Formats: sequence, structure tokens, C-alpha cells
Amino acid sequence: MKAIILAGGSGSRLWPLSREMYPKQLLSIDGDTSLLQATFNRLNSFIDAENILSITNIKHFSDVKLQLNKISKSAPVIAEPLGKNTAPAIACSLEYFKQNSNEDDIVIIVPSDHLIKDNAAFEKTVESAKSLADDGYIVTFGIKPSYPETGYGYIKTANSLQGGYKVEKFVEKPDLDTAKKYISEGNYYWNGGIFMAKISVLLEEFRKYCPKISANLEHLTFDNHLKIDYSIYENMPSISIDYAIMEKSDKIALVKLQSDWNDLGSWQSLYDVKEKDEQGNVITGKVVVDNVKNSFIYSQKELVAVSGLSDIILVETEDAIMACKRDESQNVKKLFEKLKESDTTKLHKTVFRPWGYYTCMNSGEGYLTKTICVLPKQKLSIQSHNYRSEHWVVLEGTAFVILDDKEYIVKAGDSIDIPLKAIHSLQNPYDTELKIIEVQKGDYISEDDIIRYNDIYGRV
Amino acid sequence: MKAIILAGGSGSRLWPLSREMYPKQLLSIDGDTSLLQATFNRLNSFIDAENILSITNIKHFSDVKLQLNKISKSAPVIAEPLGKNTAPAIACSLEYFKQNSNEDDIVIIVPSDHLIKDNAAFEKTVESAKSLADDGYIVTFGIKPSYPETGYGYIKTANSLQGGYKVEKFVEKPDLDTAKKYISEGNYYWNGGIFMAKISVLLEEFRKYCPKISANLEHLTFDNHLKIDYSIYENMPSISIDYAIMEKSDKIALVKLQSDWNDLGSWQSLYDVKEKDEQGNVITGKVVVDNVKNSFIYSQKELVAVSGLSDIILVETEDAIMACKRDESQNVKKLFEKLKESDTTKLHKTVFRPWGYYTCMNSGEGYLTKTICVLPKQKLSIQSHNYRSEHWVVLEGTAFVILDDKEYIVKAGDSIDIPLKAIHSLQNPYDTELKIIEVQKGDYISEDDIIRYNDIYGRV
Repeated sequence: MKAIILAGGSGSRLWPLSREMYPKQLLSIDGDTSLLQATFNRLNSFIDAENILSITNIKHFSDVKLQLNKISKSAPVIAEPLGKNTAPAIACSLEYFKQNSNEDDIVIIVPSDHLIKDNAAFEKTVESAKSLADDGYIVTFGIKPSYPETGYGYIKTANSLQGGYKVEKFVEKPDLDTAKKYISEGNYYWNGGIFMAKISVLLEEFRKYCPKISANLEHLTFDNHLKIDYSIYENMPSISIDYAIMEKSDKIALVKLQSDWNDLGSWQSLYDVKEKDEQGNVITGKVVVDNVKNSFIYSQKELVAVSGLSDIILVETEDAIMACKRDESQNVKKLFEKLKESDTTKLHKTVFRPWGYYTCMNSGEGYLTKTICVLPKQKLSIQSHNYRSEHWVVLEGTAFVILDDKEYIVKAGDSIDIPLKAIHSLQNPYDTELKIIEVQKGDYISEDDIIRYNDIYGRV
Repeated sequence: MKAIILAGGSGSRLWPLSREMYPKQLLSIDGDTSLLQATFNRLNSFIDAENILSITNIKHFSDVKLQLNKISKSAPVIAEPLGKNTAPAIACSLEYFKQNSNEDDIVIIVPSDHLIKDNAAFEKTVESAKSLADDGYIVTFGIKPSYPETGYGYIKTANSLQGGYKVEKFVEKPDLDTAKKYISEGNYYWNGGIFMAKISVLLEEFRKYCPKISANLEHLTFDNHLKIDYSIYENMPSISIDYAIMEKSDKIALVKLQSDWNDLGSWQSLYDVKEKDEQGNVITGKVVVDNVKNSFIYSQKELVAVSGLSDIILVETEDAIMACKRDESQNVKKLFEKLKESDTTKLHKTVFRPWGYYTCMNSGEGYLTKTICVLPKQKLSIQSHNYRSEHWVVLEGTAFVILDDKEYIVKAGDSIDIPLKAIHSLQNPYDTELKIIEVQKGDYISEDDIIRYNDIYGRV
């Protein structure tokens, strides 16, 4: 069996916790693992890591790889050169498996940013869907509606099949009355975007219903880095798998998802899955409340004090604070759109890297300061800058510094100058975290002023 | 004529904008000047600076002096060694004038943290109160109530006097029905805590009604720094001027305050005086709103985004975020009490000093980093530290550094080490601001690890 994890996502729904460059699936929502990692682990309990393919946008590629590598080095990750909705991503992932294994294998396709806690019940559902998939069905996992949600698409089932139902049709997000009707009729399910089928069946349906995608697959090859060629991808239409295949194919079956499920599509849904205190509040971080009810107050860094408010969501992050009415938290997307040009929708102030993370502190005319943390046994690449000098002050731990042809050991409290154009590397070969302050100084300060020397030195 | 400005204040009402160490009167609420400075300027238009005495707690002494010195170097400031409510502060201030001028002079006593915009109307009220004060009355300035406020004390007037009224009695904060009755009766005024009288009359009333305070005045002397001796002050009862004198004396008259007046006693009252946009919002700083009404959103530093909320107050400062219901904003005091042990009620992250300001950035095991800004032509004292070394990196401007017996010029991008126990001073003799990062390193890092050498060197 194979799996495809769709690890794209815009980061708008849980802003300011999620960002364009660090969307929801990369966040730890419930426990230590991210949603992506939890999705991977859920599949990994019955599918080998090398058969679980994740596909994501090039801009999230290194973060996705970084997170998955912590679980397994053999998990493949494909990079899309640009965002094209789900159908092209799924088609390319199927093509990858076609080229690398058996077309008759069953593949399960799942989003990376939903919360499912009962993994055993999920696996049971997979088991129960297998025979339908073997019989040539595309088996979608329907979620039994618990209330008349108007924000999801619904799937209408017809007569029973072995362990499931034949699907009559996919329907768009309904209005409230329609949603109520669906629920009372009993044969409607939420569309959670999880489905299983033979690789060959899905590829056949692509050929039949979406030849514009299918035709481009012929030229698709994967290099070592599994990056999809831009010229192939740009020719594909941007279309969802529902529009491309599911709503058209007559091979769709449905099994009822037996586990819990939450798409975490808004702060409200995150509130829903969290444990509440006696006042109905979910409180995280440095928070003080007085007469606050049924609210979600989240502090990442600074003190948040709230008095006399009910049914609100208030989220503090390093560089943005968001407050909204709890049951209108889907409107956070509107704020996100209004802020589209602002850095706070794109980046966190703290940026994670394979070797650790950095936080931008002050910036001004001709300078920028960062706090940099290098994890034990990690190092930054050997590099130089044409337009800026750097000055490092070690706060915690010990830095091993390569500077031109020399090596230096810089202890806490000590500092070192990295002149313009000097070839240098910041490394932490020790067992404790290294924290430094970096002061960048120059007429042009940008992440793109960097020349890497990995090949020349062969040390990194 | 003389004036006494009561410049104490706990900083709880407008938290987190105000702090225990930087209360409301020191803040700029409306324009460039602080409330204290605006109060001083209002009086200074008809009273000479050397006759306007400000009295404040020792912990605010340097900030009060710093702000007033920017207007006039000759304005005297008395420091109370501890907080004792208004009566002891007023008594000591009267004693200061008794020792330094004519007891028959009229003195006007005003709080430092109220907002009055129409200075001309205020001065008119002062003029109209003079003949009553000359006749031996203690003339309180009554504020005509505009609505049945339950948070203020009221003053009931009796028969008319020249330009005012005889006061029948002072009454405590009423409940809503009583407040409504007061307003319909028409002869009740809000007690704004502003009053005028002859110095001799007030001192006589202290002798009569508050001998415990009066007796201690005999021993009161003022040194050059105008600090009240602890042993004298601690013997005085902690009591308000209203309880001590106003409610007991039969010499109280009232003139109607002709100017606008707002005590800025809560975020709600601050909202009241601010100009609103079409949605009834007051918005300050980096704020984005969507469907927000009748709210006060204040951002000091980071982005604040609000959606779908009405009638709230949301305040962001560097290290604390406060949200509350607008018409219950007096409850901020409760949050403040809950947080009493936290640094965020006491200090701002950015601390102002006569020479500039500093902001604490990171701190950890054995280190603390600050951004320090030294204003042009300013310098820090010559000092040394027994338990920490320092490392300075210049970000902007140029530093003139005294280090033991040498002097150094440190330019932007350069750095200098200040070893343990080294005698040093950071100075900016130039015309532009100096900004540095300071990394403190040591086993014990505290503001109290400082030895100052001003006298030895005679240079500062």
C-alpha cells in the first residue's frame, strides 16, 4: 500500500499562529508533533516510510523535509514549483508511484493538516475500504455530520456496497436550511478529502476526465531532489481533485470514517478540540483572566490580560496580535487578505532552519540584529557576504567558528568579527545549544547576499 | 500666588500603558506633552515656575524632575519617602511655602493626571475663586455633572456666595439612583480634587482637624534635594485631604469649573476624549480592523488585527496585552492587582532615563542584552560593576567610551569589551543619536550592581 500526503496550505486560517511560510500543517496543535508529523505517523503504523510520499510547495519544501526527516530519512517529499490546487499534485504523486512501483497498488490520499486522534479507528476504516478499492472503486472517507455545518461540501450516498455505499453525488457547501435537510435525511456525509483507490484506477480517471493534466504526466521525470519541472507543471490547470475527478467519475464509493476528525479550519474548530476549564476557556501561555468566559486566549510570548469578555479569540504571537469573535473566526481569513502585503502574514519573526532557528530583533539604517540558536551537533554552511560584515557575541554555549583559513573557539561572553567577504561558518559541535547575537552591518542587508562554499571546502 | 501639583499615582488605571514606575501623569495622552507637563504649563501661564511645587513619591522623583526640567529648571519638586495619600503631601507642601514665602499667599492645589484642554476657561475659574479665597474660604472647583457617574464623590452646595456657593457637604460615591437624584436636584457637583485657599487658612485647618499631621510639620526641614525625611513622614497618618479637612471644615466654598475636565481614570474615559472614526473606533498605531465598532484599539509596537468585535478596549505594549469590555474598563485595576507580583505592572520594557532610554531584549542563564539609546550630547555616569562584564556593539552613531584611563571612539559596526570591575562610561558627545547593543555577562546581573564614580573623576 502507498500513501500521498498533501502538504500544501496557505496558512491563512490560523493566522497569526500560521503564516504563509509556515502554514498550519507545520504547527504543533495538540502535543509535540506537528499535524504533518502526526499524519505521517498515523499512516506509518501500517505503511512503510518510503511508501508515504508527501507533496508540497517549493516554499515549504525544506520545512516539510526537516519535519519528516526527524521521523524517517527515507520518506520521499516532492516539491511543486508553484501552487496548482490538489489535482495536479495528486496526479504527479501518482506518476511518481507508477514510475517507482506497481500500478495495481492501492494508494490512500490524505490532507496533512487535519486532526485525528483515534489512529486505530482510522486504520480500521482503511481496512474496511480495501476490498472496495480492490474492486476498482475510488473510496472516499465520509465524515458523519454532527451538526449542519455550512462550510463543508457534502457527499450524498445511494445504495449499500460491501462495507460502504455507492456515492450518488458530491454537493457544494449548502446554506443552513439545506444543511439541516441533509442531516435529517441521514445519507449525507462531510467531504473530508481523504480517499483510497488503485493507482491505475485514479490515473485512468485522470486520462478520462482531465486529459490536460494527464497529457503532461508523460514528460514527468523526477531528479534526485524530487522537484517537479516548472515547464511541465505550469501547463497543468489549477483545479481541485473534487472538480477534476470525484464529481465526474462513476466509480466513487464511500466508507464512513470511524475515527474522530477535525479540519482545524478556523480558530473556532481549534477551540472545539481543546480541553476547556470551568469557565469554558482554553488558555495557553502567560495569560491572566478576570470574568472571561467561553474564550480562547493564546499567548506565545508576552503577558496577555483579559477582563470581562466572553466568546472571543485572542492570539498573541511575537509580531502580531489577533482578536475576533469566536463563532466568526473564519473571518480571520479576511484580516489575512487585508494584510497580504505585510510581512506578518508571510513570515514568523522566528524562522526555523535545519540547524536551529533565528529571530530578527532590531533593524535600522545599515544594520540588522538577530538572535541565532544553533542546536547541538549542528552547523551553518560555509559562506561569505559581499555587502555586510557581521559581529557575533556568544550568549550561551560555545561557538566553533571557521573564519578564512583559521578556526576559533568563542565562549559565552566573547565575540568575534566577521569582515566583509570573509569566508566563515558558525558551528556547534558541542552537546548544548549555542545562542549568539549577530549584528549585521552594511549598505545592503538581505538574505540573498550569501555565497555558499560547501563544494569547495567539502566540509559541510 | 502659589501652586501645588500632586504628582503621585499608582499607574493601575491605564495599565498596561501606565506602570507603577511610570504612572499616568508621566504619559503623553493628548499631544506631545505629558499630563504632568500640561498641568504645569496650565499653571505656569499665570504663576512663575519657582512658585509651582510638585510633590511625588521618591520612586517617580527623577522622572517628574526630568519632565519638568524640560520646561523650567527652577520648578521645585518634593520627594515623599513613601506614599501616604494626599493630606500629608499637601501639608508638607504648604509647610514648604510657609518656610519659603508669605503665609497669606493663595495656593491652588491640583492633581497632575487630569485632562483639561481649555486653559483660558480654567484660568478664568481661578480668577473668580480669588476673592472667596481672600475672604478665608477653601474654594473647591466643582465640575457640573454631565451624567450620573457613580465613580466620583459629589459636593452639595447651599446658598450663593460671591462668584460661587457655600458647600453644604461632601458625599461619597453614590449608587446610580442617588446619582440621578443629585443631577436632577441641580446643586450637586463632581469633586475633581482641585482647590484654592490661603496657605495660612489650610494650615490652620490642619491644626484644627488633623493635629497628627500638623504636629509633625514643626520638625520638617528641606535639604537641597527637597527630600522629606523618612522619620517625619512615617509618623503621619495615611489619609486623603477630603477626609482630613474638606469634609470637616466649615470654610468650604465652591466655584464651578468653567473648563472641560476629564480625570482619565479609566480606558473608557480616555476613549471618551479621543476623536472617533465613522465606526466609533479610536485606533492608534499599527492596527487593522474588520467589522469593529465603538472600540479603542491601541498598538504600541506590533501589529494588532481585530475582527467582528464591538465595545472593547485592546491595548498592546511591548510586554503586555490587555483586552476588556469598554464600559467595564475600571476593572483593569483588578487585573493590575492580580498581576501585582509581575514585572509588567511595575516597569515598562523600555525605561527612560535623563540621557536616553534602554530596552531589555533577551535574558538567560548568566546574561542579559539591552538596546541602549543615548541622546545627542548626553552621557551615562562613570561606573563599574563587580559581577558582570559588558560588551557593546555600536549600531547607529558613534560612541565615546571611557574605559579605565583610556578613551575610545567606537563607530557603527565596531565593538568594545568592558571587563569586570573596569571603570567605564558610555557617552555621546555628537549630534546624532547613539544606539548600541549591550550584552551583560556574569553570575549576578542586576541594576544594583553598580558603583558610580562621579565625585572622584569630577567629569560627570
